[in-house]
Amino acid sequence: MASQKKKVAILGSGNWGSAIAKIIGSNTARLDTFEDTVNMYVFEEMVDGKKLTEIINSTHENVKYLPGHKLPANVVAVPDPIETAKEADILVFVLPHQFIPRLCQSLLGKIKPNAVGLSLIKGFDKAEGGGIELISHIITKHLGIPVTVLMGANLAGEVAEEKFCETTIGCKDKELGPILRDLIQTDYFRVSVVDDTDTVEICGALKNVVACAAGFVDGLGLGDNTKAAIIRLGLMEMIKFVDIFYPGARLGTFFESCGVADLITTCYGGRNRKVSEAFVKTGKSIEELEKELLNGQKLQGPITADEVNYMLKAKSMEPKFPLFTAVHRICAGELKATELIGQIKNHPEHMVKY
Amino acid sequence: MASQKKKVAILGSGNWGSAIAKIIGSNTARLDTFEDTVNMYVFEEMVDGKKLTEIINSTHENVKYLPGHKLPANVVAVPDPIETAKEADILVFVLPHQFIPRLCQSLLGKIKPNAVGLSLIKGFDKAEGGGIELISHIITKHLGIPVTVLMGANLAGEVAEEKFCETTIGCKDKELGPILRDLIQTDYFRVSVVDDTDTVEICGALKNVVACAAGFVDGLGLGDNTKAAIIRLGLMEMIKFVDIFYPGARLGTFFESCGVADLITTCYGGRNRKVSEAFVKTGKSIEELEKELLNGQKLQGPITADEVNYMLKAKSMEPKFPLFTAVHRICAGELKATELIGQIKNHPEHMVKY
Repeated sequence: MASQKKKVAILGSGNWGSAIAKIIGSNTARLDTFEDTVNMYVFEEMVDGKKLTEIINSTHENVKYLPGHKLPANVVAVPDPIETAKEADILVFVLPHQFIPRLCQSLLGKIKPNAVGLSLIKGFDKAEGGGIELISHIITKHLGIPVTVLMGANLAGEVAEEKFCETTIGCKDKELGPILRDLIQTDYFRVSVVDDTDTVEICGALKNVVACAAGFVDGLGLGDNTKAAIIRLGLMEMIKFVDIFYPGARLGTFFESCGVADLITTCYGGRNRKVSEAFVKTGKSIEELEKELLNGQKLQGPITADEVNYMLKAKSMEPKFPLFTAVHRICAGELKATELIGQIKNHPEHMVKY
Repeated sequence: MASQKKKVAILGSGNWGSAIAKIIGSNTARLDTFEDTVNMYVFEEMVDGKKLTEIINSTHENVKYLPGHKLPANVVAVPDPIETAKEADILVFVLPHQFIPRLCQSLLGKIKPNAVGLSLIKGFDKAEGGGIELISHIITKHLGIPVTVLMGANLAGEVAEEKFCETTIGCKDKELGPILRDLIQTDYFRVSVVDDTDTVEICGALKNVVACAAGFVDGLGLGDNTKAAIIRLGLMEMIKFVDIFYPGARLGTFFESCGVADLITTCYGGRNRKVSEAFVKTGKSIEELEKELLNGQKLQGPITADEVNYMLKAKSMEPKFPLFTAVHRICAGELKATELIGQIKNHPEHMVKY
């Protein structure tokens, strides 16, 4: 029945939003479970004197944020978020997290009451009073809908080029899980679905803290053994952090693409690693390097390290997280990068585990 | 009491043997639990007209296999294995695995009956009739002593330079574990001890199969997402392999240095990765590349992939291990490297895990 088909809307149209629109559009066109047409909210801007939505809808290419890749014709750019989302059963959130509160306020009461969210947004927000708040929780809080997440080692450019990769969907609803899998999976973009949603989402934020440590090690020229140790100790602290603040995770989730795979790519490639390496080599501050290397954009790792530290301090747990703590203190200028190893060499992980 | 002090002998004096001798010698000199003197078996050879043992015992430097690093004076080079080992309570095995059977035959009946082994030898041997046999099991079979293992992301050169790293000891004996930890741990070389010895040892061999796949991906220019996916899928197959053939492993052991950390370094550095990349880029055979790049030495990954495949085939389990199987078939010339992704894209790991 046509009325049972799920309608999908995408909120966001940057690099990652456009890459996922390419996948989602081709799947909704192919599968009977979904309505063909996928609305994609595009923040209107002028490109060479033309509206970006009009360019996308006539050329089927997001010339500004994903040039060189065609979007399926059933992906329709819409300049208004309410118009984009109002009939959708599945709302895909894929825009910078600072826009989420305002977007949700505008959508409140205007979406289907039984709609569900799928957040592709990495990172988290500062909770009122300090600490972190997951983006999926913020969306739920504002809109009162359940929110699932999708995270993994998924550089948007490579996904758009259809290079083989994996991703992880976190979804507690056992009926919805396979539907989301079908919406997202292609021949080259492979999906695993797990039920501990929070773990999937937190991995995507904490990895940036570890990547800073990996960058420091690169900057200090400490070698492959040390870098492997740093990445592993970071992973162990990620697991412990989830265990303490979001209990109930499965250890296996850290072996998914959202966990170990995304951590590895971020610690070998990625801007947090790169800026942290430059931090050690140049002696410049993080702020200066953000201006020079990131066009003034804020680096995620130091912000996350700061929020995480707030939570650890509140529970007197810094000694159990020497790597997270050292990254925060180095980024905050309280510790020299050369002191990193001194901080972690008596790590609580080094023990006889009987 | 002097008589209760443990005497340690090291069998092997290559790059890794000499690096660990540096650590062990300084610890036995420092700690009351151990006899100061550590015998190190050195296969006698002439270097610039002098015996290598004499050079080591006069200059305290293994000028042939670890030049530029001083060994502690209490490490004594001995050209005879029986002389080296006969009074030892702890026998550290660190020589190429092909020498193990003959060494054990010469030691049989000549060592203390309650001696224990600690094997640092990565890789495994071909079992009679096919499949793999762990080196620690081979030593136990020959000498009738319990054998523990030490594995991790431990490039010998970096260990010798005292760069910070971690290692994993696998030891079932709960009294012995802390003793071995004390023997090995230093300020810069950090130890975790776990009890599933077989898992620790198998990780060190299977990682080379995964590193071949990582090298193929590099050679094919497939990008960071794909490489992360390959490493992760390889790790999942390592876990499944242990589960089937050496049941009883703890999932946590794969998070130790012997597991994920060693896998990461091997897939980013390491000779298996390097030769496999060249295999794709040059179109030459593995044998040709061994001659050109490794001075004729055999590459571990393809051999292990072959033995592993024998075991999988015998249980009709190839479909559950598409990555291990593809690596074997590519190395054996049965499949093109360009077909790797086609083999793994429907991996059993990609599923809804409810």
